[in-house]
Amino acid sequence: MKAVGVVVEYNPFHNGHAYHVQQAKKLTGADIVVAVMSGQFLQRGEPALVDKWARTKMALANGIDLVIELPYVFSTAPAKQFAYGAISLLRAVGCQTFAFGSEDGRLQPFLDSFTLIQQNQALYDALIKDLISTGISYPKALQEAYTTLQQRFPGTYIDLAKPNNILGFHYIEAVSLLKNEIQPFTITRIGAGYHDVIDEHSQIASATGIRQALFNKRALQDVEQFVPSSTYTLLEDWQQTYAAFASWSTFWPLLRFTILRYTPEQLTTFADVSEGIEYALIKHAKGAASFSDFMNKIKSKRYTWTRLQRMLTHIYTGITKQQLHAYTEPSYIRLLGMTESGQHYLSMHKKHMILPLVSRVAAMQNDMLTLDIRATTIYQQGLTSRGIGDDYNIPPIRL
Amino acid sequence: MKAVGVVVEYNPFHNGHAYHVQQAKKLTGADIVVAVMSGQFLQRGEPALVDKWARTKMALANGIDLVIELPYVFSTAPAKQFAYGAISLLRAVGCQTFAFGSEDGRLQPFLDSFTLIQQNQALYDALIKDLISTGISYPKALQEAYTTLQQRFPGTYIDLAKPNNILGFHYIEAVSLLKNEIQPFTITRIGAGYHDVIDEHSQIASATGIRQALFNKRALQDVEQFVPSSTYTLLEDWQQTYAAFASWSTFWPLLRFTILRYTPEQLTTFADVSEGIEYALIKHAKGAASFSDFMNKIKSKRYTWTRLQRMLTHIYTGITKQQLHAYTEPSYIRLLGMTESGQHYLSMHKKHMILPLVSRVAAMQNDMLTLDIRATTIYQQGLTSRGIGDDYNIPPIRL
Repeated sequence: MKAVGVVVEYNPFHNGHAYHVQQAKKLTGADIVVAVMSGQFLQRGEPALVDKWARTKMALANGIDLVIELPYVFSTAPAKQFAYGAISLLRAVGCQTFAFGSEDGRLQPFLDSFTLIQQNQALYDALIKDLISTGISYPKALQEAYTTLQQRFPGTYIDLAKPNNILGFHYIEAVSLLKNEIQPFTITRIGAGYHDVIDEHSQIASATGIRQALFNKRALQDVEQFVPSSTYTLLEDWQQTYAAFASWSTFWPLLRFTILRYTPEQLTTFADVSEGIEYALIKHAKGAASFSDFMNKIKSKRYTWTRLQRMLTHIYTGITKQQLHAYTEPSYIRLLGMTESGQHYLSMHKKHMILPLVSRVAAMQNDMLTLDIRATTIYQQGLTSRGIGDDYNIPPIRL
Repeated sequence: MKAVGVVVEYNPFHNGHAYHVQQAKKLTGADIVVAVMSGQFLQRGEPALVDKWARTKMALANGIDLVIELPYVFSTAPAKQFAYGAISLLRAVGCQTFAFGSEDGRLQPFLDSFTLIQQNQALYDALIKDLISTGISYPKALQEAYTTLQQRFPGTYIDLAKPNNILGFHYIEAVSLLKNEIQPFTITRIGAGYHDVIDEHSQIASATGIRQALFNKRALQDVEQFVPSSTYTLLEDWQQTYAAFASWSTFWPLLRFTILRYTPEQLTTFADVSEGIEYALIKHAKGAASFSDFMNKIKSKRYTWTRLQRMLTHIYTGITKQQLHAYTEPSYIRLLGMTESGQHYLSMHKKHMILPLVSRVAAMQNDMLTLDIRATTIYQQGLTSRGIGDDYNIPPIRL
């Protein structure tokens, strides 16, 4: 059996994702699709709208055969580590190929962009260093250095200003680091850009647009046309159980409480918290009226929104820099769910997998896994006082 | 002007406290009464029913002329450090005398008990060590060792099984450590034991009894006969502002969240958390339905209720063993409130005080004071999302 991998967050699963899954299978001729999916906290430094089990159900209902959790230490990391963790896991599960979404659907510009930077690494690093010393943000510096390289060595490259392209770039980098043992494909994204608001005349909207509609207190029906019916039902169930979708606004009272419990020095034990931002976090946690008010008060040229949100994720979950950076490789394959085909694939390939497969977390003692369990506990505290310890109670979901 | 000191929590101020203040003044012939009062968290490891400013108002309305805050590091410490911090502060404010409540009103048994232990310290310590090795709790071991000493050297001693006597004993010890520069008096407590429930035919009830009545959802009127009218009005105001009196039950959702954010190893950074209790705290925080359910699950022969509650206080406020134990002496006199006579006393004696007087916290950089400010912030988060940073906003209360 051949498996193709996808790297996903499904926040929530929508029609564009369904298209991507179909195309991934078609393009690679795979028998099953394996998704490596972020757990409760996502790459942009946010809690997922609904928990990993609800999103697993969405995935299994729409063409995914195996859902594997991307551990917290990778799912909340910058693009480079996120991509490396995800692609490593896909390879560990035995995927020979994986497919990621991109704006124009050609792989070559990604490969060329990666080669451009790899072959001019020293120059690239020097350019970035110079640019950062002028006070601009790290992502801005990367982008300008990259533009300079492109001017010196003309060719057809990708635009690294687009979030999906940055991820794509790092997927290619991960393939190289993994000695080309897994083959990349890319699929044209259709219908909506990453940050687009929803358009009522379309069946395709970005997950960001869908979330915005949900948070703006619009009726769930407003997003119905953009998501499979299974997603819609799961969102409805969630709303009935928890009253709110998870977001920093929902978690704000606990997030504020958490920030205020730390001293500035203690805050610097979290990844990226340094250079005085620790004082701003405490000062504005005291004064802010809401999460968005807080973010508007702490944001600056030096810190992107995503970087700030990632800091907040680590502060909220209490996972320190030292804990995060203790790991460079995934050390287990955490199974969140499977279809019958997925189960069949596992029974055939399990013995050859290079990492242990975890169906029951209680059966494994692993520090990295402990952080995933902790992330669930803290995520759930933001929503309800029930449901604590679900990682121990919920077996892999079967469809 | 002569000042007599009292060491108080006023949780809440009741008729028995009013009697004590009057007697303290009468017995010592003092012109004013200075209260060193615990801040937001108390010696039994609990949040105060109402905050330190409401309790300051109660005190000033009922015969106290100056209210000085006992810093968090002393107010939440075992009896020995609590007593030493409080008596040191009274001396620092210039009190020549202080008066504490006791069951039978005689000072000599306290002095004799202190001498008994002091002169047989090596024997006493050895007895305690032996007893602890049999697995009984520290307070129980102290008590049995003390009984043995009394049998060997018969005399009239105090009963150290009573919480107020233990404090009285450590007040005498503090006087000795402070080279007898402050003179102790004791006043017979009247009408109600420390833990008694309220009796509707009396004007006197213990603070514990009053709190129990308030937490059992009885109408505020049920406690009216036991407290001065000023206390009653302040309790009424509090209830209208915050809906709930502060207690671990009120704070339980945040306390649980706090415990669950720590790893067992991180919990051992808090005072007294060791020998496996860290695992029990996490396990039962997950499963418990309420604070009392939680306490029933974690309590054991080894840990007294008070000791467990003190651990929880430190965990909740995030103040570590290292932070707590960095201080052995008060380093400032934090003024919470004053009457006109109190103000007059301060203007006369301020220059000779051996510690700086703090009326505005913003005017002083002091690590110990930072912990008091933090305790207020975290205390207030348990009650409301408003009112953060009150230590900076509320000047000393004047009556």
